[in-house]
Amino acid sequence: MSTAFWIAPASAVIALVFALILALRNMRLSEGTEPMKEIAKAVKVGAMAYLKQQYKGVGLFFGVVFVILLVLALTGSQVIFVPFAFLTGGFFSGLAGFIGMAVGVRSSARTTHAAKQSLNSGLRVAFSAGMVMGLVVVGLGLLDLSIWYIVLNAVIQEPDLAVKMERITSAMIAFGIGASSMALFARVGGGIFTKAADVGADLVGKIEAGIPEDDPRNPAVIADNVGDNVGDIAGMGADLYESYVDSIVATMTLAVAVTAFGFPLLEGVLFPMVLAGVGVIAAIVASFLVRAGEKAEQSVLLRALRLGTYGATVLVAVAAFFLVRWMLPGNFSVYWAVLAGLLSGVFIGYFTEYYTSDSYKPVQGIAAEAKTSPATVIIEGLSVGMRSTIPIVIVVAVTIMIAYFLAGGGDVGLGLYSVGAAAVGMLSTLGITLATDAYGPVADNAGGNAEMTHQEPVVRERTDALDSLGNTTAATGKGFAIGSAALTALALIAAYRHEVGAVGARLVNDGLLGEMPVLDLTVLNPRLIVGVFIGAMLPMGVGSMIMKAVGRAASKIADEVRRQFREIKGIMEGTTKPDYASAVQICTKAAQKEMIAPTLLAIVSPVLVGVLLGVEGVIGLLVGGLSSGFCMAVFMANSGGAWDNAKKFIEKGFLGGKGTDAHRAAVIGDTVGDPLKDAAGPSLNILLKLMSMVSIVFLGMILQFNLGRWTGWW
Amino acid sequence: MSTAFWIAPASAVIALVFALILALRNMRLSEGTEPMKEIAKAVKVGAMAYLKQQYKGVGLFFGVVFVILLVLALTGSQVIFVPFAFLTGGFFSGLAGFIGMAVGVRSSARTTHAAKQSLNSGLRVAFSAGMVMGLVVVGLGLLDLSIWYIVLNAVIQEPDLAVKMERITSAMIAFGIGASSMALFARVGGGIFTKAADVGADLVGKIEAGIPEDDPRNPAVIADNVGDNVGDIAGMGADLYESYVDSIVATMTLAVAVTAFGFPLLEGVLFPMVLAGVGVIAAIVASFLVRAGEKAEQSVLLRALRLGTYGATVLVAVAAFFLVRWMLPGNFSVYWAVLAGLLSGVFIGYFTEYYTSDSYKPVQGIAAEAKTSPATVIIEGLSVGMRSTIPIVIVVAVTIMIAYFLAGGGDVGLGLYSVGAAAVGMLSTLGITLATDAYGPVADNAGGNAEMTHQEPVVRERTDALDSLGNTTAATGKGFAIGSAALTALALIAAYRHEVGAVGARLVNDGLLGEMPVLDLTVLNPRLIVGVFIGAMLPMGVGSMIMKAVGRAASKIADEVRRQFREIKGIMEGTTKPDYASAVQICTKAAQKEMIAPTLLAIVSPVLVGVLLGVEGVIGLLVGGLSSGFCMAVFMANSGGAWDNAKKFIEKGFLGGKGTDAHRAAVIGDTVGDPLKDAAGPSLNILLKLMSMVSIVFLGMILQFNLGRWTGWW
Repeated sequence: MSTAFWIAPASAVIALVFALILALRNMRLSEGTEPMKEIAKAVKVGAMAYLKQQYKGVGLFFGVVFVILLVLALTGSQVIFVPFAFLTGGFFSGLAGFIGMAVGVRSSARTTHAAKQSLNSGLRVAFSAGMVMGLVVVGLGLLDLSIWYIVLNAVIQEPDLAVKMERITSAMIAFGIGASSMALFARVGGGIFTKAADVGADLVGKIEAGIPEDDPRNPAVIADNVGDNVGDIAGMGADLYESYVDSIVATMTLAVAVTAFGFPLLEGVLFPMVLAGVGVIAAIVASFLVRAGEKAEQSVLLRALRLGTYGATVLVAVAAFFLVRWMLPGNFSVYWAVLAGLLSGVFIGYFTEYYTSDSYKPVQGIAAEAKTSPATVIIEGLSVGMRSTIPIVIVVAVTIMIAYFLAGGGDVGLGLYSVGAAAVGMLSTLGITLATDAYGPVADNAGGNAEMTHQEPVVRERTDALDSLGNTTAATGKGFAIGSAALTALALIAAYRHEVGAVGARLVNDGLLGEMPVLDLTVLNPRLIVGVFIGAMLPMGVGSMIMKAVGRAASKIADEVRRQFREIKGIMEGTTKPDYASAVQICTKAAQKEMIAPTLLAIVSPVLVGVLLGVEGVIGLLVGGLSSGFCMAVFMANSGGAWDNAKKFIEKGFLGGKGTDAHRAAVIGDTVGDPLKDAAGPSLNILLKLMSMVSIVFLGMILQFNLGRWTGWW
Repeated sequence: MSTAFWIAPASAVIALVFALILALRNMRLSEGTEPMKEIAKAVKVGAMAYLKQQYKGVGLFFGVVFVILLVLALTGSQVIFVPFAFLTGGFFSGLAGFIGMAVGVRSSARTTHAAKQSLNSGLRVAFSAGMVMGLVVVGLGLLDLSIWYIVLNAVIQEPDLAVKMERITSAMIAFGIGASSMALFARVGGGIFTKAADVGADLVGKIEAGIPEDDPRNPAVIADNVGDNVGDIAGMGADLYESYVDSIVATMTLAVAVTAFGFPLLEGVLFPMVLAGVGVIAAIVASFLVRAGEKAEQSVLLRALRLGTYGATVLVAVAAFFLVRWMLPGNFSVYWAVLAGLLSGVFIGYFTEYYTSDSYKPVQGIAAEAKTSPATVIIEGLSVGMRSTIPIVIVVAVTIMIAYFLAGGGDVGLGLYSVGAAAVGMLSTLGITLATDAYGPVADNAGGNAEMTHQEPVVRERTDALDSLGNTTAATGKGFAIGSAALTALALIAAYRHEVGAVGARLVNDGLLGEMPVLDLTVLNPRLIVGVFIGAMLPMGVGSMIMKAVGRAASKIADEVRRQFREIKGIMEGTTKPDYASAVQICTKAAQKEMIAPTLLAIVSPVLVGVLLGVEGVIGLLVGGLSSGFCMAVFMANSGGAWDNAKKFIEKGFLGGKGTDAHRAAVIGDTVGDPLKDAAGPSLNILLKLMSMVSIVFLGMILQFNLGRWTGWW
């Protein structure tokens, strides 16, 4: 095994140890007064109850799929490691979400308490919680990948290195489907929970009863806070865990197909893992840059946070230079792909910020429309979100071109490998970029805690400042998440294409399939184009189902809040406590129920298309889904983000401030944006990759089902 | 020339004569009282002023492009007929819009007058105006195509039939780019005009001043009525004119590439024109089925209208059976494509109706959300629109499969030709399906006239009933328009693919290009996949620009209405008339200005992608644009339609009726939907085809620019 390999497991262990230190340091801090502890405990109990319930449902799903995969493996259409790789992928993803959230819910009251002292103290606590999430995700992901590699390398006795690597990567990619499935459940379920609670609480509390946000008299207020944790911490963690491991395993798989002169097979396979390991160290080092004086203002803290993410980017850019020269000396051009990946993450982050921050024209334009009517707020917001796809798609397109032509230098195999390397490069700093995103919900919860325990206004102001800081830095984090989803999905499609040949050859070899016909992958192949149509439609279908689910669940919460106001005397006067737990339970049940249909659609579609239209139809499906789903995801995320900040812009006092008609119009925009940006949009990022993963895992079955007819049932 | 050919020009002439008879019959009717005439005149003057202004701007554009095409033709990269075919395509499209609208504006007061007598009388007048539009579109389209065919057939002296047909169809397809450009201008400009006037008038009139819709005191009320004519009659006419001729010329072009056994080249080229001719006759015959007793109720009239459209469909289905047996005896399977096209139009119409009519759950669900808040109305409407893409895409996918596999029988050439034949089949009944769509605005204007001239309530009720009937039957019309856009665009991509070979061979032959390298049209070709990404983004970009344009123009109108209320004394008391003309002028100027940017983006993108990424990138662009644009167009049209009818559902008295909070919430939904369904959405249908057309026309230039490097600049 190449010495470089050991960088990966070593970095993973360092990340986990560092996360443990940060977590313990946070836990030593005080949670503040008794009421503060009590609120924090209610949120913690609710969040853990939700997670437990979710893991039960997901466990059932994993059990069923495990059995299916086992049957496929035993009948020879899959290798035997696949079902187990699938299980560990899901397990570690769930574990990462669990740990991240466990630390998150324990840090919110501590952040409130620290914010009493200063803004900087509050930031330190919340950001540490975010770093724990980031480091656990990269640490567990990389550790699991390393272990699998070590095991497979030892178990697979095969003298031919090419064949051996082929078999190792074929098994490891199944690790991704576990992570992807878990991610979709976590994102969809968490997204439905958080938005149902948020919308339900606001509809009755803010709009009907006229009580402020986070008011303890609102029965759904704890559910709302729980939602921030299960959706924005656990859900997002699982999402990025998936991007992270998918990009690595896809690139490893593509290494086997590189035919470029002088490309070292073993180092090529290991490079993505090692690059990720280097990124972990860079993230940890850069996290020390996130510091400011005790009296630092918001702008100074923002600069400190930026220094952290950009610092990590620069460190990886420099380290990757030497890494590529060391591991791939004859193919240094791959470095340009890594650099392009890193830079395009920064650019996408910049454009995301431009379209969603109230410092720029687009959001101010939406806010200005609030003077006219809620309808024009919506029209303008939809328009801004759609427009934001233009620069972001162009950045991704240029990155692909650089990866293919500059890094790949005309060799298709090396070009595709480089696309994967760009995705890995972009995600290599995830340890810290995820932290800038994940600390937001902790600050948000801290604000809720301050509100409910009637802290001095300055505390709430500070937690709000932290939250708003988080919204700004999260734009960069989201840029990395979205951009990497597109590149990773493309790498996965390429991996699928490669696996078709590999799996086909194996099946022919084992006598399970006749001869291998030639695939027609030209775009005007009818099967392929029909696949493209269906693929382009799926993100809309799945997005629609999730939005509908949020609406349905929010109505249930609104009904429950109304019921409690009606039936429990003294809530409004503050003499009786509302029944927080029942609202949490309703959200939990609704999310569990509603997440099934969209997730199944995502999983069943590639299998069904494979059966009806064959491999060519599946590739069309994946390409159509990727191109349209990517645009939809960007549109939904940015429309939602822009509405959110247009509302906050008015709340800062512009255009009349709170309580005006303009503010009410902006609140309507924000409410529309909620399910788009926090439930449907992020789920699409996962959908793209999950569909490719499902296609890869069921490839053998599809080939066998269609017997010699690779081209499907028609 | 095959005898069958003459069916096409003969039908065209019959359609035009029949349209003339209908128009003259309408003109003989009374326009009613002096005030009624006056209002009708104001609308007429405004509409004609707009059209004049639009044709001036468009004339300039056509002049510039004509010169460019002439230069391309003189330097040999295009055939000499192309610039002239381009001009006539645009001219006839404009003429059809002009005639249809001229009759439309002259029929509204007559409809009001007739509605005093009975519902049926009103329908007869309005529907006749719609039939004039439908017949002029198909008549002029088919006439122009026939004349070009006759001329080219006489001029091109070429003994080899295959070469001759190749050159004829190559020239005729340029006819389509004229029609497409005109359509995009008419749709975008008309759409911006009508929605700016509508939204602007409602914002100040209905919401701020609290006066009813169509109140003569509203300074923008005439502009609103003008908008119905320029957007929903002239704009839609140009749109469907484009679909109609594009589907025919694309299929004719594809006939040349058919290699299936026994396929007769000449008859294959002529078949689309003849099928369209048969459809014209079927539409005229079926229009006689649209009749009812003088005392007929709404439901009876609906049945009569349905009898008309379905009757035409059945007639074409039967006639096509014999036509295919006669013209393509050895390839009868093509009939199944024609039948699939006809049926899928009906199915798409059904699903469109299901998702947008208040008789079904989706719209009722949106209306129910109005009880909660405007935000949930928007979320639910977005969700319904997105969900509606599922069945509609599946219908189109099945139609493509039938055309390729059942009709094409495994021959790719015949399969592609059959996709085109399905589109032509679907559009063959356009004479009557367009009538059911185009009579709506006439009825809408008649209602406005009734309101402004203070007719008895029963008159307004009847015109409203006609309008609502129109909304229902229009769903079928829209189904045909949307479905045919997808199939036509696919046929155009295939035609482009074919032209690449033909144009390339000609350029090599003329010494203008080196040798012809092999194209790599597999989906994982980097140039192609980058094209797919950019193509998928363009509909969002163009849609966003149009929505933004509507918002900007609506603000200008709202300001003007406010100014008049403020500065002109006595408007509110009804003692002074507002300055209607100035509002019309502002809309005209705004629409002219705002339509430039989105139209240019649509035209420039394929050329730019061609230069940078070569032919392969362009094909990717077209496929990505088609798949994502089709879904976006369906989503926008159906979300908008559903919101509109949810509002009307409440206005019928459900959920509390007019004046309640629920109604106000539904009005917000309707306002959001306006620019989606009447401006951005329909423009996307045209975008898909225009991009293919532009690609075809500039193909020679792109090939020459990239010299031997077919694969572009990279």
